[in-house]
Amino acid sequence: MKNRIHKTLSFREKEFKLSPWQLKIQEVIYGTYTKAGKNFDIILLITILLSIIIVMLESVSYLNLKYSFTFFTLEWIITIFFTIEYILRIISLRKPMTYIFSFMGIVDFLSILPSYLSLFVDGTTSLMLLRSIRFLRIFRILRLSRYMLGADILGEALKNSRHKITVFLISILTIVIILGGLMYVIEPKEAGFTSIPRSVYWAIITITTVGYGDIAPVTPLGQALASFIMLFGYAIIAVPTGIVSSEFTSLKSGDVKEFECHNCGETGHEKTAQFCKSCGYELKK
Amino acid sequence: MKNRIHKTLSFREKEFKLSPWQLKIQEVIYGTYTKAGKNFDIILLITILLSIIIVMLESVSYLNLKYSFTFFTLEWIITIFFTIEYILRIISLRKPMTYIFSFMGIVDFLSILPSYLSLFVDGTTSLMLLRSIRFLRIFRILRLSRYMLGADILGEALKNSRHKITVFLISILTIVIILGGLMYVIEPKEAGFTSIPRSVYWAIITITTVGYGDIAPVTPLGQALASFIMLFGYAIIAVPTGIVSSEFTSLKSGDVKEFECHNCGETGHEKTAQFCKSCGYELKK
Amino acid sequence: MKNRIHKTLSFREKEFKLSPWQLKIQEVIYGTYTKAGKNFDIILLITILLSIIIVMLESVSYLNLKYSFTFFTLEWIITIFFTIEYILRIISLRKPMTYIFSFMGIVDFLSILPSYLSLFVDGTTSLMLLRSIRFLRIFRILRLSRYMLGADILGEALKNSRHKITVFLISILTIVIILGGLMYVIEPKEAGFTSIPRSVYWAIITITTVGYGDIAPVTPLGQALASFIMLFGYAIIAVPTGIVSSEFTSLKSGDVKEFECHNCGETGHEKTAQFCKSCGYELKK
Amino acid sequence: MKNRIHKTLSFREKEFKLSPWQLKIQEVIYGTYTKAGKNFDIILLITILLSIIIVMLESVSYLNLKYSFTFFTLEWIITIFFTIEYILRIISLRKPMTYIFSFMGIVDFLSILPSYLSLFVDGTTSLMLLRSIRFLRIFRILRLSRYMLGADILGEALKNSRHKITVFLISILTIVIILGGLMYVIEPKEAGFTSIPRSVYWAIITITTVGYGDIAPVTPLGQALASFIMLFGYAIIAVPTGIVSSEFTSLKSGDVKEFECHNCGETGHEKTAQFCKSCGYELKK
Repeated sequence: MKNRIHKTLSFREKEFKLSPWQLKIQEVIYGTYTKAGKNFDIILLITILLSIIIVMLESVSYLNLKYSFTFFTLEWIITIFFTIEYILRIISLRKPMTYIFSFMGIVDFLSILPSYLSLFVDGTTSLMLLRSIRFLRIFRILRLSRYMLGADILGEALKNSRHKITVFLISILTIVIILGGLMYVIEPKEAGFTSIPRSVYWAIITITTVGYGDIAPVTPLGQALASFIMLFGYAIIAVPTGIVSSEFTSLKSGDVKEFECHNCGETGHEKTAQFCKSCGYELKK
Repeated sequence: MKNRIHKTLSFREKEFKLSPWQLKIQEVIYGTYTKAGKNFDIILLITILLSIIIVMLESVSYLNLKYSFTFFTLEWIITIFFTIEYILRIISLRKPMTYIFSFMGIVDFLSILPSYLSLFVDGTTSLMLLRSIRFLRIFRILRLSRYMLGADILGEALKNSRHKITVFLISILTIVIILGGLMYVIEPKEAGFTSIPRSVYWAIITITTVGYGDIAPVTPLGQALASFIMLFGYAIIAVPTGIVSSEFTSLKSGDVKEFECHNCGETGHEKTAQFCKSCGYELKK
Repeated sequence: MKNRIHKTLSFREKEFKLSPWQLKIQEVIYGTYTKAGKNFDIILLITILLSIIIVMLESVSYLNLKYSFTFFTLEWIITIFFTIEYILRIISLRKPMTYIFSFMGIVDFLSILPSYLSLFVDGTTSLMLLRSIRFLRIFRILRLSRYMLGADILGEALKNSRHKITVFLISILTIVIILGGLMYVIEPKEAGFTSIPRSVYWAIITITTVGYGDIAPVTPLGQALASFIMLFGYAIIAVPTGIVSSEFTSLKSGDVKEFECHNCGETGHEKTAQFCKSCGYELKK
Repeated sequence: MKNRIHKTLSFREKEFKLSPWQLKIQEVIYGTYTKAGKNFDIILLITILLSIIIVMLESVSYLNLKYSFTFFTLEWIITIFFTIEYILRIISLRKPMTYIFSFMGIVDFLSILPSYLSLFVDGTTSLMLLRSIRFLRIFRILRLSRYMLGADILGEALKNSRHKITVFLISILTIVIILGGLMYVIEPKEAGFTSIPRSVYWAIITITTVGYGDIAPVTPLGQALASFIMLFGYAIIAVPTGIVSSEFTSLKSGDVKEFECHNCGETGHEKTAQFCKSCGYELKK
């Protein structure tokens, strides 16, 4: 793996003429196979987690009063670290524009902006909200961890079954809208069913088995209908599970797909097949 | 696909003598493969969604007071659109009676009726309830989306496992009735267990893991029994999932089973296979 | 099927000397394949359902006041019907003792007893509770419906996985006891965590995702632990599902089990096997 | 099995020179195949369960007042039993240090300590908390039951899918943090969303479908977002299930793949097969 990266890097070097120190930075920041790259990833991961924890704790009013200076200091240390990282990311690329206007690039920029703005503007609340954008940096953690654990099978299974899950969600929405409308007619407004959207909200709470209890039917007919929704929701929770399960199962036996016919190039032969299913040519495994 | 439709249409033309403009309308309204047909489907879909959203928003009292004129206007635009669509659907068919008395035909008719009735009758509440029938037009969206995404496997899996799911639901009902009866005996009426139907309602809330909390056991024995119901419900939620999952898995590899080699009798060829995977003999389907 | 029953019946006739009318009754009551047997099953099913609904409605106090005479009449009609059925079940069998002391036999007897007792004893409440035993007759419905829909695969899948589900439930109990004990230490008594059993009850409510909300953590540490329990419960709900799913999947491909070796009697050969896996004898299918 | 143990024991005897009575104790305490060993396991299991039930009941204040002497007596009987067991465990081993400093060894020691400490120290509350450590002995039950039912497949399936479940949990955490932050901004503090950690706590309650209802959105926008979270959580509960299900399925058919026929190379023979199912050649395992 390391070899492949070095090859790619030297290839890139010739073509785009990045100076050696730029390549070194690139290897550390974007690479994940070298030791320095791995360490950088881990440090970045911890810093992002720390920055998110600080934003979260700052929102707790009594902690904010007590440790406001600690938060302020940590905030600036992290901001400076992120700023340096942002600059290094840009200068180590030949085409920095692609990164700057990518989703992660914009998130990276927006996560350092609020701290600098606070020097000029006054109004902590709106700035704190802005600082919440830093939360989106958590996606970098997600991507890293997914990468490290080599479990992209998860995303693939979800992607393969997106059509079926969409149909499933549309079906659920159809049901909750009709049932919500019915409950609005059946139940008195005092029970919380004050409008159809609110009744639909209640139907979603019920069919997904969340069940807050802030809105609950009080008439016998309403309770009977609610029972029906619950049992229905209980029985059809099987559907998305079945979709994804069968997807996982077929992805797991997916190493079968490797067999390729040397005559016509057809793939996807079963493990026990002796002849190509497309051209009848004998398979040499 | 497009070819097949044209063939069908010209065949129909000869037999039933529909004039060319009727065929044109039919192609747009009922067809889904031509560009005009697709566009019509999308416009219809948006209009239905819009009409449902309006009925929903009208039920929110403060919005109804504020925007009553906007709602009124949009209501009539949609009604006129649906009326034209309804008339076109009828005149473009040779046997319109089949459509008129079909489920969708009745829904289509009932969804335009209330607006016209409001011209003669006075009594907004009951009319608004009638207008809720328009919600059933959502099924057209459901059918379209299911069709477009080619995921009828969903309905098929549910249909194949309907027997097992029925038995499962009867089992659940048996359990909730017995447990509901028990809780009625155990718990005081003050805790909400005022009658057996109400106790059964509570048992359904609990076994499906919805858990509103409007009725909750207060005695130690009742709480112990409730714990048992919860753990039981938690363990058997696996059953419908297992049913549907195995159905999906077998549907995924299902159509394969039919093909049989006429030379060696080997079965289990994939749908796209042209030669027997065991002996290389050409498959005649 | 009908043939087999007739054969069995005539065989039984010779051996035990049941008179023809006894055999006729037996066929109607115990048989399910003849028309008379089926009709009897359906009438019995409806009567049991009706008797359960009456007991349920009687528990609703305002209905009981209003329709007490109707309930009384229906109660006695059903009691007489059940009494006749009970007597016929006994006299149509050669060894009635087996039936009388079986689970269903005792339930059948107990479900007619309370009505007769009410003639001599006074004290409606305790009698009504006794009458709830009639609820157990619902198991006859369950057995019938399971039989009619031919879905014994359900019970089999659960039976096969009972060991794993037991281990799973013991694991869950271990976790809720430890977490319940922890929450008792962490949370104040005012939040509802007044004793360890109550805390364990809360942990069960939480881990099974029921969530009544009658007891809920209020301290940050308690809420953090609760979050952990929820995520944990969410992740491991997969386990029983996985167990039962894989059981269903293997039961579905279970028709394989029919192949039997004509040499050694070994069963369980795969569909594609050509030789007995135990003795190497060629399989003739 | 019994043979193997005896062989192991006599082998150990030669090497480490344990006296015969030590070996006898070892067989009873650590063995599970001899009758004495099984009986000891069952007695230990019951005693642990009893000790846990006592600690639980002691925490119920009115029971503690009423039966304090009974609890005190049982407490000491169990403590003495556990003390003897602990001493026997140590003296019947050649290298007792390994056991003493193992997890179970420390738990065994800590579970007898509090009772003895109560002789010298005064302060019931803190001692009762210490006594809760006895709860951890429940793991011995868990291990035993798992062993007895031969269902280690459960732990294995979970272990195999730990990477995917970790990624899944990180994804969930990412989502609840972002959604919790959003809800903190949208909802007023009066609805319970007083800080981001609390909002995240609410998001976890919602996405796992627990739904206490102690915190619930009140604004239309918040309720819309909550609906989205619920439907999302409902759709993705399929993911861990799919992971574990496919793991179970492959574990079930897993050990089969190893056998290969030395004559025709056919694989996929069942564990109990003695002849190749394709050519009838004897399988040499």
